[in-house]
Order: sequence, then structure tokens, then C-alpha cells
Amino acid sequence: MVAPLKLGIAGLGTVGAEVVRLIETQARVLAGRSGRGIRVVAVTARSKAKKRGVDLRGVEWVKDPLALATHPEVDCFVELMGGAGDPALSAVEAALGSGKSVVTANKALLAKHGIKLAKAAEKHGGALNFEAAVGAAIPVIKTLREGLAGTGINRVYGILNGTCNYILTRMEQEGLSFAECLKDAQRLGYAEANPSFDVDGHDTAQKLAILASLAFGTKVAQSAVYVEGISSIAPEDLRAAADLGYRVKLLGVAVRTATGIEQRVHPTMVPKSSSIAQVMGVTNAVTIDGEGIPPITLVGPGAGGAATASAVVADIADVARGIRANPFGRPIAQLRDTRKAPMERHEGGYYIRLLARDLPGTAATIATRLAEQKISIESIVQRHPNGAAPSGGKAVPVPVILITYATHEDGVRRALAAVQRDKVITGRPQVIRIEKN
Amino acid sequence: MVAPLKLGIAGLGTVGAEVVRLIETQARVLAGRSGRGIRVVAVTARSKAKKRGVDLRGVEWVKDPLALATHPEVDCFVELMGGAGDPALSAVEAALGSGKSVVTANKALLAKHGIKLAKAAEKHGGALNFEAAVGAAIPVIKTLREGLAGTGINRVYGILNGTCNYILTRMEQEGLSFAECLKDAQRLGYAEANPSFDVDGHDTAQKLAILASLAFGTKVAQSAVYVEGISSIAPEDLRAAADLGYRVKLLGVAVRTATGIEQRVHPTMVPKSSSIAQVMGVTNAVTIDGEGIPPITLVGPGAGGAATASAVVADIADVARGIRANPFGRPIAQLRDTRKAPMERHEGGYYIRLLARDLPGTAATIATRLAEQKISIESIVQRHPNGAAPSGGKAVPVPVILITYATHEDGVRRALAAVQRDKVITGRPQVIRIEKN
Repeated sequence: MVAPLKLGIAGLGTVGAEVVRLIETQARVLAGRSGRGIRVVAVTARSKAKKRGVDLRGVEWVKDPLALATHPEVDCFVELMGGAGDPALSAVEAALGSGKSVVTANKALLAKHGIKLAKAAEKHGGALNFEAAVGAAIPVIKTLREGLAGTGINRVYGILNGTCNYILTRMEQEGLSFAECLKDAQRLGYAEANPSFDVDGHDTAQKLAILASLAFGTKVAQSAVYVEGISSIAPEDLRAAADLGYRVKLLGVAVRTATGIEQRVHPTMVPKSSSIAQVMGVTNAVTIDGEGIPPITLVGPGAGGAATASAVVADIADVARGIRANPFGRPIAQLRDTRKAPMERHEGGYYIRLLARDLPGTAATIATRLAEQKISIESIVQRHPNGAAPSGGKAVPVPVILITYATHEDGVRRALAAVQRDKVITGRPQVIRIEKN
Repeated sequence: MVAPLKLGIAGLGTVGAEVVRLIETQARVLAGRSGRGIRVVAVTARSKAKKRGVDLRGVEWVKDPLALATHPEVDCFVELMGGAGDPALSAVEAALGSGKSVVTANKALLAKHGIKLAKAAEKHGGALNFEAAVGAAIPVIKTLREGLAGTGINRVYGILNGTCNYILTRMEQEGLSFAECLKDAQRLGYAEANPSFDVDGHDTAQKLAILASLAFGTKVAQSAVYVEGISSIAPEDLRAAADLGYRVKLLGVAVRTATGIEQRVHPTMVPKSSSIAQVMGVTNAVTIDGEGIPPITLVGPGAGGAATASAVVADIADVARGIRANPFGRPIAQLRDTRKAPMERHEGGYYIRLLARDLPGTAATIATRLAEQKISIESIVQRHPNGAAPSGGKAVPVPVILITYATHEDGVRRALAAVQRDKVITGRPQVIRIEKN
């Protein structure tokens, strides 16, 4: 009989407590699957006194995460404290440095220090598993790392932030503004008091950086991700998208292009018929385009204590079974530096919404500026507000919605800058990239 | 440096040839991921002369699959011949019996002999991997076996047969009959000349039996699966489903109930808003309901040479990495016998379409028969054909569509038998089970 795998768990919030509970209630199944027992031997958390609804008798309480990480009794350090800095960083480094395996749900840590930590795991022989860091219980890390081991990946993209998808879903379904939906999301606990990390796209960017590394064999590089959030999206954009057969989602997209690996997070128009467009509310989804095969889409809960704990426990079971995968799918020496594809070179279709001054020559000016940049228009919709008739010389702005054929981002930017200089529009143009499936 | 993993491949059809190609073109990535090289050393197939577009120079041609399975140079036997009987069965048994690992895409073999083969793998220490047997490149086996290792499963269900989903999609979108769509599917190569295995649900049943074992820790038992195909589905059922907010899909459903594990394959009404309802054409999808977590849905190609080969190669990479999972997730000794939940005890909502004789008292008779079985009606729609007015005493049959609240199958069967005996309907009642998400 193999000795049980002994866990040290740092962080006993919703996820940590649920991990302790699952390890206990699923003990027999886990032992069967892993070929050995799994036992929590020591824990640490900010408050020892807090009620957590789990039985911690017989489990050693360690005050310092670093001491837990190097605890001689611990085989596998489970880091559930979060944050890219200390104590998580030094604790994980210490655990890996002493040859222990690490299981973590910490996307920020991996997006920032993933390569350094993977190197330590590789050098000292421990596992570094982080299924829960992206899409919680959705098995996207395992799928990219193992399930598609022999298949080249062309693109991976997804809805990686439930807060944003919840807000966009409500905006679309109820015609509400971003601000109203954000307030509701905060009230319901789907958004933080300071929502910037979610709604400005940074959470998605961290997760995308991890997926891109696994998909393309490049070093994790959050700084290589272009990021735009959803706060500028207006109900009229969602209405126009619906009319045109699209939905707007905050996507993280990593794609192999002629100029390198594009990594970008931005509001995106996706065809209504695509799998990703069907994903509503706080649900997450990731689509993987493998070479020569139709897309694979994984849909499920991207957050929540039970879903995150499910992934953490599966990672622990893999450690118990003795599986030591390369954290980012390949040996560190084989990971290439990320060659950041410049966003200006991005190629794709664009949705452009302008408020045109209702003056003679406006349409001609806009058309000319686009033509100068060799941008072809797939469709154009000009609607007088409230169905009012054209107002002749009176300068009431008129919304104009353009859909372009595939073109380059720098051309779009130049054309719109020229249109603004020409003073034929009021306000800033709204631009949403279109992602084809 | 670890010695390379040496493969013997039996079967060089579309999948086999693509596996050979991937092993060659992805050699470097596979070696990086696996920590060792992977090499095809010997092959067998029916015709040596056939052009396959892959380079087999330097690969030994073995005439007899059994000889390949026990070939002293082969570490891992890749079975891509198909069929539940010989030569696949004896070859796989022989390979496992001599301690080799086996990778196979053969659902029929696993559904029928899975436990016997898993026992052999367990006894002699080889791996038995079969990701490609269900849902091709959709990583559903890995997800159930490893990704949800610590999570209890309540239900797993899905669209597991692309032929049926293609036919139902076309019937729905174009209002065509089953026969017309089947003919088209055959012309396009989506259905066999003898379509029974697909359209009567047997292919789905084999795959479901495998998934149920992984999900519930029971022994694979295809005979425990209740099976109904799609040939009785009429365009009017799909129209009525749409009106009521549903789509009709051929689902395989395995669910934990009070009376045991229900395993059933039948046309099913699923809410239009569910992930599974969005899956159109030949695409497959599986939804897993884990304890305490929202459903996880995996969507993708369920067949095709490249998609199947992708899963086979991932399985081979796992063998190369030294991973030896229990084939059905748990040690054989822990797998329980399948307690077949009788279909008569199935509990759920029902869609019932009757052709009622347009005679006084018909509605009352039907209502009484349902009430006798304590069946409550959620909605009832009676439409005179082509919007014609009631025809009084003239016995023109009128379609009546009933949706019941959750009830037991035996009650539904008894009520409808009574209605038939009462001679208030013509023809056979159409019954479609409703699956809630």
C-alpha cells in the first residue's frame, strides 16, 4: 500500500473549506481513483476562530503560510490565498523549491510568475497544477495540456469572466445600461465593490495569458495581452448586434497569425449561431480550434466555491496518482518567447457606430475616409432617431452603423481619426471587433 | 533519456492513417509533452497495397493483428479496426495480457467487453485508453475519469450520434420528413447504407454505457440501456416542440435515481435555452451534472478522421508519459454491478400527440384516462388541421398535443393503452420524454 498523499492547505475561504469537505466525503472514491489515500494534515488561514463548517480536528494549524509550504509532513501544498504577490508567491516558491507539488487556483500568480514557478517545479520534480485558475471546473487546462497533446492549436477564445457576461446578458435581454447592470451585479455579489479588475478585462487577460501559453507553447506573458473592457458598450450596440445576427461578448482571444500570437481581450461581436454566443449569465466557455478539426467548446461555471473546489480536488488526485505534467504542457526549454502581434496589424471585420451630423456631404466624407484606407463596407444602416424624417439643414446627429469586411485595425483607426478631424460626427466612434467562427 | 514508446497500429483507415501522420508531424511537441519519443514500429491492415498518403517506410508490416498485438517490439497496441468481436477482441486481450498498453477508438468493444478488458489491463499493468470511443476529440472520458475525480455525478447526458442530430436538425429547420433527411444524410456520407445502428439509437447506447460506468462507478452494461430511435419523429412533433419552447434531440441519458441508475436513449424534448439544444448538425455534446456545481457541457466533433485521431494521439501521449489510469475511473473491484432502473418507473414530463376522433366525449374520455393515472396536464393544444372549424359529427381526426407535469412512465403507458381501447383516437399515440436542465 502506498502512503497517503499529505496536504497542506493555505486559505480556508469558500473554496478551501469545500476542498477540505470533498477530501473527506469523497475519500473512498478518491483513494480508488488515485491508488492511495489523500489526507489534510495541516492548514493555515487568516483567522483560526472563524466557523467554516468543516471538521479540522486532528489537522495541524500553522500560522505562517511559508512554514506550511515547507512543512516536513506536507507532500502537496494547496495554495488558495490568491494574489500575485506574497504570501502566495513565496509560499509556492518555497514548496516547489523543497520538491513538493503545488495545486493552486491563483490565476494572478500564474499569469505573472508562471514561468518562474514552472521552472522550479521542473527542477525539483514537483507538480504544478492549476485547473481551477481558468474556468473553475471547466476542464480547459487539462484539455489543452493533455487532451489535445498531439493537435496543433490555431485559436483559443472564450468568455472567461462571469461578471462581464452577466452584465452583457442583462443589458441585451432587458435593454438596460452598463451602469444599471453593474449596480445589480454588485448587489447580487457577482461584481466587486471596485469592479475594474473584472469589467476592464484584466481578469480575462490573466486567464487568457495562461491559456495562450498552453495552446501555443509560448511563455506566459500577461503584458502581451491587448485589453479593452466593456464599460463603453451601450444598449444600442447590443440592439444593433441583434439586428445584424450577432451578440456582444467580452472575449479573450489568442490566435496564431502571420505576425505572431495575437492575445486580445475586448468586447466582440460573435455570430448568434456560434456556441459561444449561446453562453448567458455568469457561465463561462472556451472554444479551441485545433488544426483540421471542428471547434471544441467547453461550457460551465467559471467561478463559485464548489466549482473551483472540484477542479482543485481533481488536481490533487492527479498529484496523488503520480502524474507530473509539464505545467505549461511542454518543458520550459521548449517554450518560446511570446512574440506579441501588434494590435494595429489585427485583421478582421469591424462594427462601427458613429453619430453623424445631419449635414450635406457627411455620408460622402465618411465613405471617402474609409475608401482611402481600402476598407470595404459589408453593410450600412442609418437610422433617424425615433424614426424621425431627415431634418434637412438642422444638425441633429444621426446614428450610422457600419459593418466592414475583413480589414486591418490601423486602417480603421486612421479612417476614424480622419472622420473626427473632418468634424462630420459628434462624440467618439464606437468600434467593436467581429470574431468569425 | 527514456527509450521511445513503440507503437503497433492495427487498422489504417482514415483514422489510422491520420494517427501515423500526427505522430510524425507532431513528433517534437509530443516528445516534449511526453518526456520521450513516440514511434510507429509496426502496422497491420486489410490491404497492404492501398495508397494512404503516409510514409510507412521503415515500419514493419505484420499480417495478423494478433501477431502485432503480441509483437515483442511493440509497447502500445493501437486498435483501430473496430467491431465488438474478433480480430479486435482477441488482439486487445492478447496485447493487455502481455502487459502492453492499448489505445482504442472501439466503442462496441468497450460497451460489450469493457470490464473484462479493464480487468486484464489492471492485472498486467498496461493502460487501456479510449477517449476516441465517445465523442471523438471531445475530452469527455478524460473529464469524467480525471477532471471530476472528486465530484459526485448526478447525471450525464448528451448528443452522442451525429447522424441523428443531423437528421433532426434538418427536419426542424426545413420541415422535412425523417425519410427525406435520412436519404440526404446517406447521400452526404453522414449515414450508412444500413442506418439502423445510428438511427435506432444503438450507437448512442454503446457510448452511453461507457459514460455511465465512468460517471457512476458501475460496470459497463449496454444491456441495461433502454433504447428508442428517431424514426417515429414527425415534422409536426418538431413544430409543436418549437411552439412550446423545446427542441427534439436524440439523447443518451444516465441518471442516478431512487430506483438505481437509469440509462436511456430516446428522442427527448430539451428546453431551447439549454446548452444541449443549441447543438446542431453533426456536432456532439455531453453535459455533466456534478454534485453542487452547475452543469458542464462539452461540445465538438463526435466523429471524423482528424477528430478521432486527435483523441487517439492524446491517449498515446498519456501512455508515453507513464499515466496508468483505471480504465473506468476506479479499480475493477470497486465498480458496482449496474442496477438497472426499470423504464416503467421513469419519472418526468411527457409530450403526447394524439389523433383524436372528432366525436362528442373524446376530450372527456382522454382527460378521464389521464386523471385515473394521476397525470396532471401542464398544457393542452388542440388544433383543427389547416385551421378548419370543428366538423361536428364527422369523424375527422384532430391532433391533440398534451404536455404533462412530472409523472411516472407506467401511468402514461396505462393511460394511453386505455385511450386506445376506448377507440377515441386513431393510430398510435406519439410520446416524447421531456428532460429538464
